[in-house]
Amino acid sequence: MQDRTYTADAEPGDDVTVAGWVHEIRDLGGIAFLILRDATGKIQVKFEKDEMDEDLVETGLGVARESVVKVSGAVEEEPRAPTGVEVTPESLEVISAADPELPLDPSGKVDAEMSTRLDNRTLDLRKEEVQAVFEIRAEILRAVREQFREFGSTEITTPKIVATGTEGGTELFPITYFGEEAFMNQSPQLFKQLIAGSNVERVFEIGPIFRAEEHNTPRHLNEATSIDFEGAFCDQNDAMDVVEGVVTAAYEAISENCQDELEALGLEEEFEVPDEAFPRISYEDAIERINATGELDEQLVWGDDLSTAAEEALGADVGGHYFITDWPSEIKPFYIKDHDDDEQLSTGFDLMHPRMELVSGGQREHRHEKLIEGFEQQGLDPDQFEYYTKMFKYGMPPHAGFGLGGERLVMTILGLENIREAVLFPRDRQRLSP
Amino acid sequence: MQDRTYTADAEPGDDVTVAGWVHEIRDLGGIAFLILRDATGKIQVKFEKDEMDEDLVETGLGVARESVVKVSGAVEEEPRAPTGVEVTPESLEVISAADPELPLDPSGKVDAEMSTRLDNRTLDLRKEEVQAVFEIRAEILRAVREQFREFGSTEITTPKIVATGTEGGTELFPITYFGEEAFMNQSPQLFKQLIAGSNVERVFEIGPIFRAEEHNTPRHLNEATSIDFEGAFCDQNDAMDVVEGVVTAAYEAISENCQDELEALGLEEEFEVPDEAFPRISYEDAIERINATGELDEQLVWGDDLSTAAEEALGADVGGHYFITDWPSEIKPFYIKDHDDDEQLSTGFDLMHPRMELVSGGQREHRHEKLIEGFEQQGLDPDQFEYYTKMFKYGMPPHAGFGLGGERLVMTILGLENIREAVLFPRDRQRLSP
Repeated sequence: MQDRTYTADAEPGDDVTVAGWVHEIRDLGGIAFLILRDATGKIQVKFEKDEMDEDLVETGLGVARESVVKVSGAVEEEPRAPTGVEVTPESLEVISAADPELPLDPSGKVDAEMSTRLDNRTLDLRKEEVQAVFEIRAEILRAVREQFREFGSTEITTPKIVATGTEGGTELFPITYFGEEAFMNQSPQLFKQLIAGSNVERVFEIGPIFRAEEHNTPRHLNEATSIDFEGAFCDQNDAMDVVEGVVTAAYEAISENCQDELEALGLEEEFEVPDEAFPRISYEDAIERINATGELDEQLVWGDDLSTAAEEALGADVGGHYFITDWPSEIKPFYIKDHDDDEQLSTGFDLMHPRMELVSGGQREHRHEKLIEGFEQQGLDPDQFEYYTKMFKYGMPPHAGFGLGGERLVMTILGLENIREAVLFPRDRQRLSP
Repeated sequence: MQDRTYTADAEPGDDVTVAGWVHEIRDLGGIAFLILRDATGKIQVKFEKDEMDEDLVETGLGVARESVVKVSGAVEEEPRAPTGVEVTPESLEVISAADPELPLDPSGKVDAEMSTRLDNRTLDLRKEEVQAVFEIRAEILRAVREQFREFGSTEITTPKIVATGTEGGTELFPITYFGEEAFMNQSPQLFKQLIAGSNVERVFEIGPIFRAEEHNTPRHLNEATSIDFEGAFCDQNDAMDVVEGVVTAAYEAISENCQDELEALGLEEEFEVPDEAFPRISYEDAIERINATGELDEQLVWGDDLSTAAEEALGADVGGHYFITDWPSEIKPFYIKDHDDDEQLSTGFDLMHPRMELVSGGQREHRHEKLIEGFEQQGLDPDQFEYYTKMFKYGMPPHAGFGLGGERLVMTILGLENIREAVLFPRDRQRLSP
């Protein structure tokens, strides 16, 4: 529709054709208004019943809410209109009439359950505040990619159908691949390492990962977006620098480019770009601090994994993003390298938001022998992973990286209650459609 | 490795630490050279045997090719060195020794079969010309996304695990989802339409698609990257404008930002940015032109699909990118809208490169009743797609869009013979690993 003007661009004095959805009709008797909504905002269309073509008035005021209409006419200033201007229609066409019974009210006046919203995402996304989440999500991905390029990394695409999962185990969705058993990949881990070991050196990928975990919580998805980085000649500290860079870049981009969206979400006041380096707290210090809060029933001892309650206690204590470094080796996966001077201590780290874990990373084990040992300790058959391990015999540099949960990043930045609000069509234990 | 200098940044007069792979060792007797390679290029390391520490010389010259080493020393001008500079090592450390027997020669002196290359991608990607393909691929994706944003579209992520395929049929990989039958999505078609029908209006996605086709050709993959666009209030001509914009933007970005990579591929002379609009040829005119070439054994008649031979004949005749428009409705999928004044004629279009089809697109059927009819005509049960069709009752605007094959775009831009050269870890009928 080449001649269409977005409502946000309609200026007094213009003759325009606008097209969009019927947001609301207000009939005041002699005068009536149709509020038309499009991607950029809303505009008031004025009907003066006695002075205008009868058919036009009848069509314009008889149409059901959420129908799609096209209106041509002159734009005039009107301080009482929601956006300060209004259109007096010369012509009006109903392009797509909506059923008067809607399963969900896009004006947002009636609250809807999460499942109703997800079943009717098209209608749900006609709400300004829902649209804002996904405009911001797109901006986050843009900013993160730009920041990865600033770090000299190259975007890669790794396969989602794989012969073996990264960590084996039962958390894989099985797939039939031309009669052979295969799986949906749970992480690009092994593949990004294989490319970091080539001349490309530093790589990133933003793509789907699949986990058959039976969790059904406000912070787990069975199909999620993973933001991955891997860099040759990097150690865990370099990887943490990259994490800090991309997370901060996401906040900065929103602050610079998404003020309207923040307003739609009512966040324009409270939104803040992190202005300090994220503290790097060793696992050992972390359990001490958690114990000191007195929030847990039982004191943590070295070697314990951190429960949600423990994470929350520490998050409240720190009050912002923080890293937990130097985890016990046995808690971290086999591909994470141990410290050279202490095999009990891994180079693995997590980036925590006060609400939840966002990132898991570390320096990787790049020594072939140690890697094979790691597979065996994990109870995995190294032969099944030979496609991966053999490349470690041909000059694998030290390397480090991380995986950042895309939806968790959106969720924590915007303070969303449920991770399902950060993805258009969530996949969980119960939901496979739409 | 915070103190490391990329070889490309090593300037005469600097004291540097460089790290990378041993590309080659040339021993000339009293003097010897180690060529060190990293992501940015190569640098010569000089060994004067009688004047340098014996251990250092022995370590440096005794190391196997493709081992990872770290060298510190002064950079000096040396016109006879491959890059005009050389390093005289003060110290040298072998970080990761390579097995002297390599399954593939990254210096490129020995040709390798495609399957050997794919089995050893890490080594394969240490070749300058292979690295160049993937650096360019990343640049193409960056440029395409930027161009989509120029067109006012928002990046979306749609699910890859779905309850029903876009076009049904047998070309779906089945997956077991918590005991339920599900599939890997073959196209984001239905999902992107659902979002185009919301306030977001214009959307794009670059993501994996999965097709269980038994093709095994140099131009088919079973897991591919699809570049998708959908826009509300767009018709097929608008969609073709967007196609033209993103494809041209990809060429322009390479021309501006990838001259080194084009040189590595020997394409610096022949690479050309398309400088004219892509001709839009109706299907009717296309079959006439194909028949006129005399290249086919049998004359085409209206309603025939175009064989590979037919496409090649027309491609040679046109000599560049071109659209084929106004296809017979029965050849195009049900969700493509027919012309209002001729139900036999669809608004579907393809973008063709002289070598192959790149894009399939069109205006979509947005009328609920017509859409249900389309499902039935296609032999699909509309009830199975109710999650999709019901949204067409609530004000679905006219909309249009397309899907562009990511690997085909890379392949045609760079003149690659086999689509497997355009993806890091291809998935085909035989290959599931790595």
